[in-house]
Amino acid sequence: MPSSRGLLVITCVLALDLMTSACPSSGPTPDLLSLVTGRCLQFSTFLNPAAMCDVTTRRQNCSEMADLFISAFAFQDVCNISISRYDEFLEATNHWIPADKSVFWEGVYDFVHLYTEMGKRAITLEDTLTGYMIDRLRFCADPGQPSGIGGPSTHPCPSFEETDGCPWNAEFAFWTAASQNFASKARGTVSIMLNASADVAFPPNSFFAQWELPHLKAGEVSEANILLVHTPGHAVKETCQGPSITDLKRRLATKNISATCRENPRDVLWLLCWEDPSHTECREIISDDTNAASVGKSCLSVLSTLVMLTGIFLIVHISQTTP
Amino acid sequence: MPSSRGLLVITCVLALDLMTSACPSSGPTPDLLSLVTGRCLQFSTFLNPAAMCDVTTRRQNCSEMADLFISAFAFQDVCNISISRYDEFLEATNHWIPADKSVFWEGVYDFVHLYTEMGKRAITLEDTLTGYMIDRLRFCADPGQPSGIGGPSTHPCPSFEETDGCPWNAEFAFWTAASQNFASKARGTVSIMLNASADVAFPPNSFFAQWELPHLKAGEVSEANILLVHTPGHAVKETCQGPSITDLKRRLATKNISATCRENPRDVLWLLCWEDPSHTECREIISDDTNAASVGKSCLSVLSTLVMLTGIFLIVHISQTTP
Repeated sequence: MPSSRGLLVITCVLALDLMTSACPSSGPTPDLLSLVTGRCLQFSTFLNPAAMCDVTTRRQNCSEMADLFISAFAFQDVCNISISRYDEFLEATNHWIPADKSVFWEGVYDFVHLYTEMGKRAITLEDTLTGYMIDRLRFCADPGQPSGIGGPSTHPCPSFEETDGCPWNAEFAFWTAASQNFASKARGTVSIMLNASADVAFPPNSFFAQWELPHLKAGEVSEANILLVHTPGHAVKETCQGPSITDLKRRLATKNISATCRENPRDVLWLLCWEDPSHTECREIISDDTNAASVGKSCLSVLSTLVMLTGIFLIVHISQTTP
Repeated sequence: MPSSRGLLVITCVLALDLMTSACPSSGPTPDLLSLVTGRCLQFSTFLNPAAMCDVTTRRQNCSEMADLFISAFAFQDVCNISISRYDEFLEATNHWIPADKSVFWEGVYDFVHLYTEMGKRAITLEDTLTGYMIDRLRFCADPGQPSGIGGPSTHPCPSFEETDGCPWNAEFAFWTAASQNFASKARGTVSIMLNASADVAFPPNSFFAQWELPHLKAGEVSEANILLVHTPGHAVKETCQGPSITDLKRRLATKNISATCRENPRDVLWLLCWEDPSHTECREIISDDTNAASVGKSCLSVLSTLVMLTGIFLIVHISQTTP
């Protein structure tokens, strides 16, 4: 899923006539076809060639895949795109996902993608070809444009977060279709990374709750590791015993998926603190061994001195009291 | 610079007629123009839009930049490409690099790019637009092809590591030009990340030694932090006092660049151990605080017991000896 950071509007106010497309804007991502094609080539040539080197079936090339994506929403009704229009694109970009590697998430976009290391450690939707090609893109249908898709003059170009009055816009329909598809392919143990500093760690209206969780297959997914992440320095608003986590566990149980929940487990905390070691919580970890070791050393030296003094005292005492 | 991993040859032996370009091969990277264009769009739209949103000058667009790259070596003499042919591409992809952020490296491709977080924490050549667009690509001139560049039938397509008898091939000329250019732009404090497990951490024939170090500007670069990285579990073959590091410090000193050297500093070791916590060295760190804390706790409890017993002994002794 795209980050909401992608929606940040930075207005370049100077020399607008000289501004290039590289200046961030809130409109549709420019050069969509080239960007999507390039990402597909990057994924299949460098990031995960093994997944794409499928010698038994004829796979569409990246240019064909990019065309399938665009044609799913080009010239369509801006707010009423059927999710099934993305079927061909999902089929074309489909590849095998190893069991026990799928990660679902909500509210931790930056961190979860640092954590999965581009699919090396674990796999989010955005680490698959489908998600990688579309991640953070802004796009919409615009039947008024020659290309049929949103361009610089398209206002508004509703995002997946802007569904009020425009429920099935191109972005929302895509992420719904892709999320359902990704969830339905999960096998074995899945991870669910949620934000403990959000008001509700497992919001019932999130993509995960609405389009992924219901599509996890009972019998195929046996276990869920819930990872509650909180950035050091931020308030913890929900723990593993919190109401929304309890709700999540209950929903998993109806699918016979057993759940464990951990709050900032060590590998998560390590990475968070590596990213930003300035917070007290991190200073405690970083200095823990130094502090504890120095306490240990001081204590041992006091102890040995005391033992020695007691020994001397006893020897002197015994020698004095011996008749 | 590209990783030597990129040269890994995996032979797909089955159903060759159905094989797609996604199967890794040792030849030139397919779809070079689309890939380079897509990477440029990815960089300027998502990875570092601030660097590219230059409102005072007209910047070439990504398609033009990709063309400049290809035309630098297309139809040229395969083994004799002048580095100045890349000048226009370097100029077009040039952007500001903040002082104190430049990182040079040798023998630590994977780790250094995990460490810099795509330019967020620090900046290698591959985190700049110039390097990002070309990183890990295989390319060469081939005047016999309609496009003038290496295609599937081009054998051999010499890489930057294959300069024997082909000294100035397209890759070698590019990385030489880009390295010189990157080094000449460094300001303030630079970092130099080297591999302590390599036979020689600072090899005199490396790109860094040959094309970057000589182009660091005396007076502009004031300090160098040498980071000697060794992967836990691998032998340490060179320390900060080793002969090649001494040589490096001497070369830096001739430019009035003062140097510090650290072996696996804490943030480096943390990230290494986060990546692979299985080695003894990492288990020691991970359990350090637990161990030290438990030693401290045990010691304190023995100490307090001893103090208590001594107190009781003294009270009893004094009460007995008091007339």
